[in-house]
Amino acid sequence: VLLGINPRARLVDLTHGIPAQDVLQGAIALEGAYRYFPAGTVHLAVVDPGVGTARRPLALWSGGHFFVGPDNGLFTFALHQPGTRIVASSNPRYRRSRVSRTFHARDIFAPSAAYLSRGVALTRLGPPVSDPVRLDWPRPRLTPRGVDGQVIRADRFGNLLTNVGEADLPGPGRVCRVAVGGRSIGGLVGTYRERPRGALGALIDSTGRLEVFVRQGSARARLGLGPGAPVRVRFSSVGWPRPPRTRTIPARTRTSR
Amino acid sequence: VLLGINPRARLVDLTHGIPAQDVLQGAIALEGAYRYFPAGTVHLAVVDPGVGTARRPLALWSGGHFFVGPDNGLFTFALHQPGTRIVASSNPRYRRSRVSRTFHARDIFAPSAAYLSRGVALTRLGPPVSDPVRLDWPRPRLTPRGVDGQVIRADRFGNLLTNVGEADLPGPGRVCRVAVGGRSIGGLVGTYRERPRGALGALIDSTGRLEVFVRQGSARARLGLGPGAPVRVRFSSVGWPRPPRTRTIPARTRTSR
Amino acid sequence: VLLGINPRARLVDLTHGIPAQDVLQGAIALEGAYRYFPAGTVHLAVVDPGVGTARRPLALWSGGHFFVGPDNGLFTFALHQPGTRIVASSNPRYRRSRVSRTFHARDIFAPSAAYLSRGVALTRLGPPVSDPVRLDWPRPRLTPRGVDGQVIRADRFGNLLTNVGEADLPGPGRVCRVAVGGRSIGGLVGTYRERPRGALGALIDSTGRLEVFVRQGSARARLGLGPGAPVRVRFSSVGWPRPPRTRTIPARTRTSR
Repeated sequence: VLLGINPRARLVDLTHGIPAQDVLQGAIALEGAYRYFPAGTVHLAVVDPGVGTARRPLALWSGGHFFVGPDNGLFTFALHQPGTRIVASSNPRYRRSRVSRTFHARDIFAPSAAYLSRGVALTRLGPPVSDPVRLDWPRPRLTPRGVDGQVIRADRFGNLLTNVGEADLPGPGRVCRVAVGGRSIGGLVGTYRERPRGALGALIDSTGRLEVFVRQGSARARLGLGPGAPVRVRFSSVGWPRPPRTRTIPARTRTSR
Repeated sequence: VLLGINPRARLVDLTHGIPAQDVLQGAIALEGAYRYFPAGTVHLAVVDPGVGTARRPLALWSGGHFFVGPDNGLFTFALHQPGTRIVASSNPRYRRSRVSRTFHARDIFAPSAAYLSRGVALTRLGPPVSDPVRLDWPRPRLTPRGVDGQVIRADRFGNLLTNVGEADLPGPGRVCRVAVGGRSIGGLVGTYRERPRGALGALIDSTGRLEVFVRQGSARARLGLGPGAPVRVRFSSVGWPRPPRTRTIPARTRTSR
Repeated sequence: VLLGINPRARLVDLTHGIPAQDVLQGAIALEGAYRYFPAGTVHLAVVDPGVGTARRPLALWSGGHFFVGPDNGLFTFALHQPGTRIVASSNPRYRRSRVSRTFHARDIFAPSAAYLSRGVALTRLGPPVSDPVRLDWPRPRLTPRGVDGQVIRADRFGNLLTNVGEADLPGPGRVCRVAVGGRSIGGLVGTYRERPRGALGALIDSTGRLEVFVRQGSARARLGLGPGAPVRVRFSSVGWPRPPRTRTIPARTRTSR
């Protein structure tokens, strides 16, 4: 459908592996990847349990990228960016002539994305939207001694991604200890290989998230944990005696965005 | 192999998820999708348990599209269209110079598709074929009170697709009741959300087929049914008192092709 | 990331199905496929358990193709080819400006591949490498009466691919008998259909490897065997009485490269 409208569109599959109906997982996957695409990319994302109901079809411009998909919170991470513009893509001119009630990806979203990629102005797709649906995005909570968060995703390697971000952690001058599901796993390392084969560890992943892993194994399988499991990080000062096996992340190698 | 012959070819993966050897499932997937590609698209489809035997390699022009693949019924749905032309792609000029006995997708079909996409005439690929293999395609049977069909596919969400099409059902002025595997699931709804979470329902899907679903769940898992399970639809007149919970499909929203 | 550097790059996914951390499986998949891509293709391959450690990032030119990925043996099959050139892609100019410690596919390898596809000379990516890591590639062993090898891969159909190649077997004038995991499966056939439905068989596959299969079934499931299982081939002279059920491969249909 996209190529029928814009034969020159470049199609890149980001993932077809989001669990059915899981809007939050879709949002997390998109949030971690979209900024690595060229500026002006149109991101067509469909996790759409409400297809065929009154939920609006959206098109957004945010952070130098377009996003197209259902108004169910899938783009929550983009809504707060300054300069974001949002419309409901209701203009029949930019849809397929017949719209099914169960496959808006084909009949509404793909056409919206294709027309945007051809240079059609966002505002021509439909009227502005000021109240997009937002997910109840799980946020970490600062505590007197650290930060409490949770697992938000298990990737295909079995790594457990959390909602604790690099910015929630102390700078390189301080150390911290991590526990997940009540189980202590020591301090942060900089790379998987710093832990012995089969051992649990924690690091800051490539998108800036705290990640729990098993070296050359699956933390999901080992711990029996998945999204929702509690994660607790405790900070301590530099001057304190360092607990064994913890490490700070050297400043020069920290991933930040 | 395709790009070695036509560097400008656009490659789109439709699916790599057809069960091994299951020609009918491949045919159903292709039949539901091909018409949404631009006119003139070359559809390379390979589900090929007979690779290396005397089964012919085919190339077809049908309904404004090309199809390339084995002569085993994979294109049954296209054979009846007026103006269809079929050849056996036996011309060695349009194959790889060495043809293996187990990977004709690489050695015969991909070259055929690439040459067609470059504009080589269908008839140059080989001699006409008048007796292509046809699948014993499961057809619904009209009964005095309705139509009897069967499940033909379970999709990745667990929805059960049937061989009962929109055209087999009464128009909007009549209602009908659906049963699958002997279990009654009431009338048709227009969209998933018209059923409560976890409830069974039936609707006309985006390709015009009667589909049985569980709202935000898997009908396949719930009912333990798959391809071959019987589906029964009973019609009743408008004038009759409507059974509870049935709905007609409003005329303006029906998907038809 | 690739398209941000070279907007005209053509992206083709070969596989995302290599088991996590399994460098040898990645190498086998790439070795069986790369030569069917157009000359000059850049093959970006990442199976990278050592990401973030001192293992070098490599870029190679070998056999008319480029290869980009980690220095862990993934390209062992290409290293022996005459004219191969290898560099460590350490030049910061051809990386992302920030390099994470866990996602070099994004930050180092994809940029290397994209710049090579734009025509940047291999030697500009970094200094030459003379001692690349090589896998302990399982090689078949010639015996007085035949050749001993092993299963090296099970494909998605359950076929068992071995490290015994066509060149290890006698020419068409001799016959041979195959056993896998101690179980005799008779001689070679030319195509799956020469065995009855559900029967075990062996043939030379489309990449020139001895392959054990179950006709329209899974040899992996039937035999309970996978990579590492022993394979034994015994040769016998033409003049000898042929054991029942063995067949030679007719010369005209043998796959060779």
